[in-house]
Amino acid sequence: MFEKELELIEKKDYTQLLSVIRDMNPVDIANLLSELPENKQLPVFRMLPKDIAAEVFVEMETEMQELLIRIFTDAELHSYLEELYVDDAVDIIEEMPANVVRRILRLCDPHTREQINQILRYPKDSAGSIMTTEFVGLRADMTVFEAFARIRKIGIDKETIYTCFVTDSNLHLVGVVTVKEMILAGKDIVIGDIMHKHVVFVKTTDDKEEAAMCFDKYDFMAIPVVDQENRLVGIVTYDDAIDVLQEENTEDIMKMAAITPEDDSYLRTPVWKHAKSRILWLMLLMISSTFTGMILTHYEAAFVSLPVLVSFVPMLMGTGGNCGSQSATMVIRGLALDEIENRDFLKVLFKEFRIALMVGSALAIVNTVRIMLMPEGTLALATVLGISIIATAVLAKSLGCCLPMLARKLKLDPAIMASPLITTIVDACSVLLYFSIAVAILKI
Amino acid sequence: MFEKELELIEKKDYTQLLSVIRDMNPVDIANLLSELPENKQLPVFRMLPKDIAAEVFVEMETEMQELLIRIFTDAELHSYLEELYVDDAVDIIEEMPANVVRRILRLCDPHTREQINQILRYPKDSAGSIMTTEFVGLRADMTVFEAFARIRKIGIDKETIYTCFVTDSNLHLVGVVTVKEMILAGKDIVIGDIMHKHVVFVKTTDDKEEAAMCFDKYDFMAIPVVDQENRLVGIVTYDDAIDVLQEENTEDIMKMAAITPEDDSYLRTPVWKHAKSRILWLMLLMISSTFTGMILTHYEAAFVSLPVLVSFVPMLMGTGGNCGSQSATMVIRGLALDEIENRDFLKVLFKEFRIALMVGSALAIVNTVRIMLMPEGTLALATVLGISIIATAVLAKSLGCCLPMLARKLKLDPAIMASPLITTIVDACSVLLYFSIAVAILKI
Repeated sequence: MFEKELELIEKKDYTQLLSVIRDMNPVDIANLLSELPENKQLPVFRMLPKDIAAEVFVEMETEMQELLIRIFTDAELHSYLEELYVDDAVDIIEEMPANVVRRILRLCDPHTREQINQILRYPKDSAGSIMTTEFVGLRADMTVFEAFARIRKIGIDKETIYTCFVTDSNLHLVGVVTVKEMILAGKDIVIGDIMHKHVVFVKTTDDKEEAAMCFDKYDFMAIPVVDQENRLVGIVTYDDAIDVLQEENTEDIMKMAAITPEDDSYLRTPVWKHAKSRILWLMLLMISSTFTGMILTHYEAAFVSLPVLVSFVPMLMGTGGNCGSQSATMVIRGLALDEIENRDFLKVLFKEFRIALMVGSALAIVNTVRIMLMPEGTLALATVLGISIIATAVLAKSLGCCLPMLARKLKLDPAIMASPLITTIVDACSVLLYFSIAVAILKI
Repeated sequence: MFEKELELIEKKDYTQLLSVIRDMNPVDIANLLSELPENKQLPVFRMLPKDIAAEVFVEMETEMQELLIRIFTDAELHSYLEELYVDDAVDIIEEMPANVVRRILRLCDPHTREQINQILRYPKDSAGSIMTTEFVGLRADMTVFEAFARIRKIGIDKETIYTCFVTDSNLHLVGVVTVKEMILAGKDIVIGDIMHKHVVFVKTTDDKEEAAMCFDKYDFMAIPVVDQENRLVGIVTYDDAIDVLQEENTEDIMKMAAITPEDDSYLRTPVWKHAKSRILWLMLLMISSTFTGMILTHYEAAFVSLPVLVSFVPMLMGTGGNCGSQSATMVIRGLALDEIENRDFLKVLFKEFRIALMVGSALAIVNTVRIMLMPEGTLALATVLGISIIATAVLAKSLGCCLPMLARKLKLDPAIMASPLITTIVDACSVLLYFSIAVAILKI
């Protein structure tokens, strides 16, 4: 996709190159740099104006950032650090080895270092850890004219100027006002008269997912973050919220497939790390599926005398697993999107029960037809399977909705109660049910 | 959560109530209204100032919107419609029955009606269908002062004023400039000198997910949408992009759990609709699991002579299913986030192969120990299972990555190639492998 740019680099026409790339989006410039041969990366990067270079730097892959930081002179690194937003600097620092972190912190100016350290102190998944301390703070008695003067003075270093937060002399949040409202109000209006006094905020210690979900709910551009004394200490912006939402979705999806979530992208994660994040659940589930095996062994006499019984085990286990994972998935997603609350438990259970009866009956009917068409098919066998399928569906769907809701109640992540775990439990129960019904009805 | 407000309604203290709620976020007011008894909803809604009422109306559940529209007088409905952004109006119209839609369109002013109809004409999942036609368009030869005058004049009706798009006389997009850049530049600067000329845009016919992914990649606030002649016809804003991302995530998660995605939330979807969206896959998977049953029947002689073989079937099937769904999930998510491309196919396959060898070997070792501890355990049996487990893991992980990538190549949704389908195929193959290895090694 960068043919033209790569050609200019080949031809060493750097003047033309600079005029082309300086107008590109920083994300694209970072991608272009990553496609260059290593000996061209630094020269091209150094051609960029300082402010653009800093934006490009933020968008690079961690490996390339580390490589460049190690090559930069102290003066160079210092000048780029000056251009970074505090939350971007924190994101970079979090991925770097300790010696690089020390060098970065040493080269920051003292005020920035203080802000970075403050954010680094918040727990990993807290709202505090993703906020930036750079926001536009206004006073309620300012006029719009004064507010714009302030924005013009301090705005260049602020991540967003469009949502401004109004505080009192104790730094308590008293209102919020947007640049749109100020532009439309006119310059002599007092901020206190146009600001919104009901402000939705999060605390530094709240989960970052909670902060991100506010953006899904309210369409904010930025949300204020207050400390334990209710003082405004930072803001979270919509672009960070989008990242958190995508991350949390990925994490939920991984957990639901019995994978311990990894931060890095698929291709960049080494093989042993992939194996590590998958083996734990595989091992647990393998060991627990031994129970199903033991139940089968218990009914050895039954299936030796009527071997056709064994041939329905995969179908029953499969159906149970699929029914359970459908319900678990619906409920886990509903909980994640706040569409389902703890208090809806009985409503959900009753709903899943009725769905299970419906789909179970449909499956049982089709299965009966199939068995009656088999040479060894009998009505008794069809009855055994019909009852087993319906019972399995009811059991699977009830467990599938109960376990995630129980997890939420116990303040665990519902996503870990997903398909593989439920499948394993349902497997054991459905095989037990099936053979006890078979023994009772077929008298074997 | 609305104790105070509900108490004021109880006491009929509407003056106090209005002063409390008019400062609340429209999303919260909509939630409050939905908790009121039906005979209070309309009176409280009618108390709200027109502009706030319109914002609240947008945030309501579809049922309540429909209920209110049916009660509104023509004059009332017209006045609310005037306040709505075009894309919000379209969202509402898309959920309404035909007779309500006709009434809404009749009561819109002609210009708005034309814009609504234009958006409604775009295909359901296209970028055109989620865009709004209300944006601030500027000319390159305007000064910042003139630009702000224009924003002040037309801005109140625009969904976002912060990103302004610069077009030439043919409405072709030539640049983009933010309000922040204009504020910081000063009033005499010409827009053409500060605008960015490389503009990332989408076409009206592009998939809406593609438009939304641009926000994940570039941190935009708005992205321009152009028609087939490259004329600027609308913009998509970050809040709509967040909704699309969440929707697409939900859809992917549903598909991966063998559920046909439904638009509505879990609790509002009726039982029969839930059953309908689940039965198709359950039926297909039940029927296809018959193959595994047939394979078992084929090896009847083997397991009747050595019944302990049957007891390992659930473990093998479970492990195969879990291995396969782990790989499928990783690859599907990687594809969805653009972290994996079609050209990475061999890289991914080789990676999964090595992961499979690692986890397969670990599982086989643990399983060997377990078998040797069993009274009927023999080294031959342990060997049969060891080989079967490793082979199953390799097969499951290879299929788990190949099928979603194949789907992408064929322009199908990779998510439908997820766990349940792969599990069913892996089940049949692993049972076949297991029994053929058992027959060969144990000579039964």
